[in-house]
Amino acid sequence: MMERNIVRTLIVETPSKPGNLGKVTTAIGDLGGDIGEITTAKIGPFTTVRKISIQCESTDQLKQMIEAVKQLDNGIKVLSVSDDVLLAHEGGKIHMSSRLDIRSLADLRRVYTPGVADVCRVIQEQPDKARLYTSKGNTVAIVTDGTAVLGLGNIGAIAGMPVMEGKAALFDRFVGISGIPILLNTSDPDEVVETIKRISLSFGGILLEDIGSPHCFEIEERLKAELPIPVMHDDQHGTAVVTLAAVISACRAAEVELEQAVVGQVGLGAAGIAICRRFMAYGVKEVCGVDREPTALDRLVQYGGTALNSLEDLMQKCDIIVATTGVAGLIRPEWVRKGQVILALSNPNPEIEPEKALAAGAAFAADGRSVNNVLGFPGIFKAALNVGAKEITADMLTAASKAIARCTPLGELAPHPLDPKVHIEVIEAVERVALMDRK
Amino acid sequence: MMERNIVRTLIVETPSKPGNLGKVTTAIGDLGGDIGEITTAKIGPFTTVRKISIQCESTDQLKQMIEAVKQLDNGIKVLSVSDDVLLAHEGGKIHMSSRLDIRSLADLRRVYTPGVADVCRVIQEQPDKARLYTSKGNTVAIVTDGTAVLGLGNIGAIAGMPVMEGKAALFDRFVGISGIPILLNTSDPDEVVETIKRISLSFGGILLEDIGSPHCFEIEERLKAELPIPVMHDDQHGTAVVTLAAVISACRAAEVELEQAVVGQVGLGAAGIAICRRFMAYGVKEVCGVDREPTALDRLVQYGGTALNSLEDLMQKCDIIVATTGVAGLIRPEWVRKGQVILALSNPNPEIEPEKALAAGAAFAADGRSVNNVLGFPGIFKAALNVGAKEITADMLTAASKAIARCTPLGELAPHPLDPKVHIEVIEAVERVALMDRK
Repeated sequence: MMERNIVRTLIVETPSKPGNLGKVTTAIGDLGGDIGEITTAKIGPFTTVRKISIQCESTDQLKQMIEAVKQLDNGIKVLSVSDDVLLAHEGGKIHMSSRLDIRSLADLRRVYTPGVADVCRVIQEQPDKARLYTSKGNTVAIVTDGTAVLGLGNIGAIAGMPVMEGKAALFDRFVGISGIPILLNTSDPDEVVETIKRISLSFGGILLEDIGSPHCFEIEERLKAELPIPVMHDDQHGTAVVTLAAVISACRAAEVELEQAVVGQVGLGAAGIAICRRFMAYGVKEVCGVDREPTALDRLVQYGGTALNSLEDLMQKCDIIVATTGVAGLIRPEWVRKGQVILALSNPNPEIEPEKALAAGAAFAADGRSVNNVLGFPGIFKAALNVGAKEITADMLTAASKAIARCTPLGELAPHPLDPKVHIEVIEAVERVALMDRK
Repeated sequence: MMERNIVRTLIVETPSKPGNLGKVTTAIGDLGGDIGEITTAKIGPFTTVRKISIQCESTDQLKQMIEAVKQLDNGIKVLSVSDDVLLAHEGGKIHMSSRLDIRSLADLRRVYTPGVADVCRVIQEQPDKARLYTSKGNTVAIVTDGTAVLGLGNIGAIAGMPVMEGKAALFDRFVGISGIPILLNTSDPDEVVETIKRISLSFGGILLEDIGSPHCFEIEERLKAELPIPVMHDDQHGTAVVTLAAVISACRAAEVELEQAVVGQVGLGAAGIAICRRFMAYGVKEVCGVDREPTALDRLVQYGGTALNSLEDLMQKCDIIVATTGVAGLIRPEWVRKGQVILALSNPNPEIEPEKALAAGAAFAADGRSVNNVLGFPGIFKAALNVGAKEITADMLTAASKAIARCTPLGELAPHPLDPKVHIEVIEAVERVALMDRK
């Protein structure tokens, strides 16, 4: 699920007459630029200055758009092009803050020596008290080896830091978790597992992030088995949770019974396999998959799915299609069966355009632009930490998907990613299941 | 340098007449209780309620003090005893915060995908840019294996967490550094070094904390040699920096020329050895030491010091005595030479009471209650991060000691630990030396 990833702000001056903004936005749109917010910076008697945020896929495309706006002439000027994203990242996005004031010697004695020694002794006697008297119980390590960062591939752990900080920022703002980026300079599964285990005392949970396939499978499974705290690889299970939620919502809109359906997953990478596993855990009748890699098909079968020989077979056999291949236009309209639910989730260019799928007879079709991991991992971890869960179970993940689906307006695939109600619902639903598991 | 480490708040009601508070504080003081702040919670026509913060060494002593106050009778009542320190620690002392708001889709696109991908690519191309566009350049890992926590010994890493959080809180409040506690479940030097190296990409510096002797020496030296970022063991060098500062201030008060003096260090643990090294780096004429451990004496000689056979010899030979043994009353008054400068720094009970040392002829004598590590490590790391220093050199540490001494009022050993000027002076002095080193 690759994304458009150049974001710039054009500062454009136009004559203060109706019609000029239309010319500018049309010029940008004609060249494939995606326009975000437009804000007005200055309104004068003769000219108006606006900030126009645009997304595009390459610097070449950006240059073409700037050139096109300049050539509109007629008093239309590009005053400057600013990289607000880079500016926002100066100094980093996160900071470890003291929750207590230190303004007097009394404060110092409480926070540091000698007072702190007493707290140390309480924890020495009862190590579980660390969950209460330190930040451990509300802290999650966000660990990457930098081998599969976003759609950028193996760019190295340090280049992945802005993503890890982003996750930490979301943890803080959405559910109040303290997220700690940990960049590993090894991607050897033995060393990754060993290193995380050696530092795991510091944390209440481990979020694995942007770790490549197939070593992500072994790393996550070993850590889940060997650590007494929740461990989750977001690119697998976080993505799968929001995808299952999207499919539940799509089935509701199309009036299709998900449990009775045969589901086909196109693309069996880390996310694809995890999506299949979520469908199985949800109780779907049969889960089929296709992938170019024979080892990926083996893995699907190992988890209980059905490997098919071709995409055509899959389109023939399945009632619901989920595609996460990153290959635009992979699904031909003539393969679409009447009444199918088709989610072509690759960004920015889906495996089949929703309009084409609908025209070919699909009962429901959508692309992935509204499906965002942000909806899943914060609430899942907050719930696990709140109840002191030792792991994140399949049932907890299913509960999260259902909660997200409940918050989704009819006809849409996902709730607004900033709707705070979603996280509250996810936390509540996941906690309930975690507490039942414990009994 | 062990500290008194039970801190409690007594809530005491007395008749609203002069003299009653005196009775209460006398009863507490007679039993060795150390009284901190007293605040008035309620003044009524008949009774007054006060909160009295006390420190003591054991729960038995605490009980005796409470009993003594109760037995004053005459309307004096202990309403309750609260553990404000433990209360203050609930939920932990630190939290990882987002520095940016996430209130709109535009914010989300800036902080997270798709905007963040561009920042990743910038860092992929120029890894040094991580210092600018992530928090790495202002982040220090605070790493412990829990083998020598405060004066409590080998209580385990998780029990040391309140101290690590305390350091992180001080980093934030005093110099704005983001400090990340990392608890290791190994104290094997090979494993400690390997683990820290594997996660070091995430950080701009490494503060080693409460790691026992002798493995602390090997761990610090190997990390300094093998990592391109500043590494410092605070229990060695942070302590030594503030101790050297105290000695500089003591010499100024006693009008003794430190460079021309023979200095004797009593106790050659991790701190003692580091103090000796600081004296040598400062240019002191000769540094002598005593310790029960032959290996400690060997280590002193290896660093260029003189090992002596007995404390009596040391008292005979040296002009300035620094003691950090934790053994109360170790230095006999009859050993004190006229004109000596004696800093008996063990807390709460020094190796010799300052009054006794002065009575025996010392030119200056003090205990360690005002000497606090808080004065050193924050500014040293901030300076190192600010200038992008690859290590913390001996010259940088000496500069920090001199800066702290410059901020110390005449006749005292150390500045007030909350005086913000100290950190600014330390940062400035250390930066200057670090920039000179670079040329």
